[in-house]
Amino acid sequence: MALVNEHFLKLSDKYLFAEVAKRVNAFKVAHPQAQLIDLGSSDVFQSLCPAVIEAMHKAVDQMALPEAYDDNGAEQGYNFLREAIVRNEYLPRGVHIEPSEIFINDGEKSDIANIQELVGLDNTIAVTDPAFPVYLDSNVMVGRACTVSGSPCSDVQYIRCTRENGFKPQLPSAPVDIIYLCNPNNPTGSLLTRDELRKWVNYALKNDALIFYDAAYEPYIQDADVPHTIYEIKGARHVAVEFRSYTRTAGLMSVRCGYTVVPMALTAAMTATKDRIGMNRLWLRRQNTKSNGTSYVSQRAAEVLYSEEGRRQVKEKIDYYMANARIMRERLLAAGHRLTGGDNVPFLWLATPEGTSSWDYFRHILYNAHVVCTPGIGFGPSGEGYVRLVAFASREDCEAAVESILRS
Amino acid sequence: MALVNEHFLKLSDKYLFAEVAKRVNAFKVAHPQAQLIDLGSSDVFQSLCPAVIEAMHKAVDQMALPEAYDDNGAEQGYNFLREAIVRNEYLPRGVHIEPSEIFINDGEKSDIANIQELVGLDNTIAVTDPAFPVYLDSNVMVGRACTVSGSPCSDVQYIRCTRENGFKPQLPSAPVDIIYLCNPNNPTGSLLTRDELRKWVNYALKNDALIFYDAAYEPYIQDADVPHTIYEIKGARHVAVEFRSYTRTAGLMSVRCGYTVVPMALTAAMTATKDRIGMNRLWLRRQNTKSNGTSYVSQRAAEVLYSEEGRRQVKEKIDYYMANARIMRERLLAAGHRLTGGDNVPFLWLATPEGTSSWDYFRHILYNAHVVCTPGIGFGPSGEGYVRLVAFASREDCEAAVESILRS
Repeated sequence: MALVNEHFLKLSDKYLFAEVAKRVNAFKVAHPQAQLIDLGSSDVFQSLCPAVIEAMHKAVDQMALPEAYDDNGAEQGYNFLREAIVRNEYLPRGVHIEPSEIFINDGEKSDIANIQELVGLDNTIAVTDPAFPVYLDSNVMVGRACTVSGSPCSDVQYIRCTRENGFKPQLPSAPVDIIYLCNPNNPTGSLLTRDELRKWVNYALKNDALIFYDAAYEPYIQDADVPHTIYEIKGARHVAVEFRSYTRTAGLMSVRCGYTVVPMALTAAMTATKDRIGMNRLWLRRQNTKSNGTSYVSQRAAEVLYSEEGRRQVKEKIDYYMANARIMRERLLAAGHRLTGGDNVPFLWLATPEGTSSWDYFRHILYNAHVVCTPGIGFGPSGEGYVRLVAFASREDCEAAVESILRS
Repeated sequence: MALVNEHFLKLSDKYLFAEVAKRVNAFKVAHPQAQLIDLGSSDVFQSLCPAVIEAMHKAVDQMALPEAYDDNGAEQGYNFLREAIVRNEYLPRGVHIEPSEIFINDGEKSDIANIQELVGLDNTIAVTDPAFPVYLDSNVMVGRACTVSGSPCSDVQYIRCTRENGFKPQLPSAPVDIIYLCNPNNPTGSLLTRDELRKWVNYALKNDALIFYDAAYEPYIQDADVPHTIYEIKGARHVAVEFRSYTRTAGLMSVRCGYTVVPMALTAAMTATKDRIGMNRLWLRRQNTKSNGTSYVSQRAAEVLYSEEGRRQVKEKIDYYMANARIMRERLLAAGHRLTGGDNVPFLWLATPEGTSSWDYFRHILYNAHVVCTPGIGFGPSGEGYVRLVAFASREDCEAAVESILRS
């Protein structure tokens, strides 16, 4: 008799963003005339950069020619893109990464979810709280976390990031094997400086832990003392996998491209012998077997972001979203709201009115201000009492949304 | 201390196709002047159809416009493609499938590998032997199969498809929970007719088993009594997941698009209560959490294959490859070789000379005929004594390769 994987039943039935979409659709059906402003989805609203459009057209034309491109090593990504990443993301920061350590993907979510396959089921995990829900959900699905139903999970170490500690993650209080870190943090917008991140790397080195480091919002970093890659920290290549993405810059959401760095120096232990096993080789085996790789057109789109024209156009987009965030931030702060973010990330982490749950405030804003946000509780227990507002909309919409929230 | 997932270490270190590529590269380094003909990779060699090129350009232009396309439900695929699949693949065969039962992916390999996440670790599995290595490898990685190292795996039911039984899979001899079936079969080219497939569906219904049905080579079916979808068989929607692909028609390999059908009626049991759980909802949750979906451009490329022009161009490609296969088949048979396939699939399953292992024959052909094939042992124990030759090359190359093999 075929038996279901019962770990799935311990998940909330609803993936956060799918549940938000469902409630928004219910509102739309009841209020077909209402003009909603969507500050919930992290999909960028803007059209693709001209340089990207041009690169994609060129790539399509190449695909019309027989054998114009080489499909070798497709699961790991084309050499042209992996080499461009080495030259543009790592070498300028004094970090030596080899193309063989880079794996192109279809946007970071899949790899962040799949990376847990490389470690044993008995590893203990720590997640920042609040955090991107995929970190925890992907571990629940295989039975590594939340093996007994309940929220919060009794067998997960939540690293609380709250107003009381300035939303700064603190080192684990009990031993842990796997740590999910996000810098700049989604959804709170808090930052780890080089000195702060060094403590985490040293913790991992000392305790033989692994760090799964999510740098999805790295392009938005403004402060000089915030690292753009964890490999700026000495020793990190022995303990960290890094996840990066193109989806939130340059309008590349629907292009589907990101990458993961699994250094050759990264190892984990065998249970009995304590022999060390290289993670790069395992991840390559995993990707060869279970991934088809990313389309040629998408990889050419990502590559062009490193050209002079591409860089300029991406910077324009980033500046635009960051100006949105700053305007929203200042207006809400001036009106007496409590919030973080908006300075090094294109979103705000907004406190709900005293005593209002995040789903209630989500509903209040939706029905009264016609603005879509994301309820903080969806990011973890410490997200209760907050909502996230992203700045991925037009200037006019961002301004109108804030005024509408203030009136509501 | 972070511990490695030791199940990975039970896999052969080498993914079959990566190992073939490595050995071919070693040959190339030693023989830089040699002109190789690649009949190993199932990558189609031909350029993309003109209709696909046009659709992709159009899609890229749409992405240059703000909000010209709707990203909703992106993890499951765009509605336009899911509806086109329903109308073109299923309704004409009298099969009623809803768009909500269809999940667009980046090529079938990933979903075939990931589908095992939905079932419990204690399920027993059966695979046809030989078979696409991903079926078994994906189960080894999570510890469901081959928990004790060794080949063949002691805890897997191999459904031997050999010369003695005409390469026809026979119903399992012992109870089993999960069955991987491929029709037309890769790599042997054998077929299950409607009557034969009905026995499998009835077996699954009677024994409460699930069938993971790989129909990657469906577009190449020529015989009228071979089903194009398992859902042509009554009751199949209660027991089967179906995997389909666009990668081997129309030159869509590097476009990365395929789809999986998980019917609403498909369920698996809870261990203790025997309650039934719907698999569609679980798969949706899995995809929402762990997949980014497929790029807009790729989905528009797939959609156009259903237009009149697209159909005509795909048929041309299929006819071309099938003519290649027929020519190779007839020439090799006439020269006294023993083989199957080439009539409903674009590849041949060629017996090696008496007493020659499949890796030895791979090497012999590579070094003496300058032709790349795939050694049968890579598809499972019963693949020993065979190699696979695909017809995804130019007519001239296919003809030259066969003559070269005959001379070698």
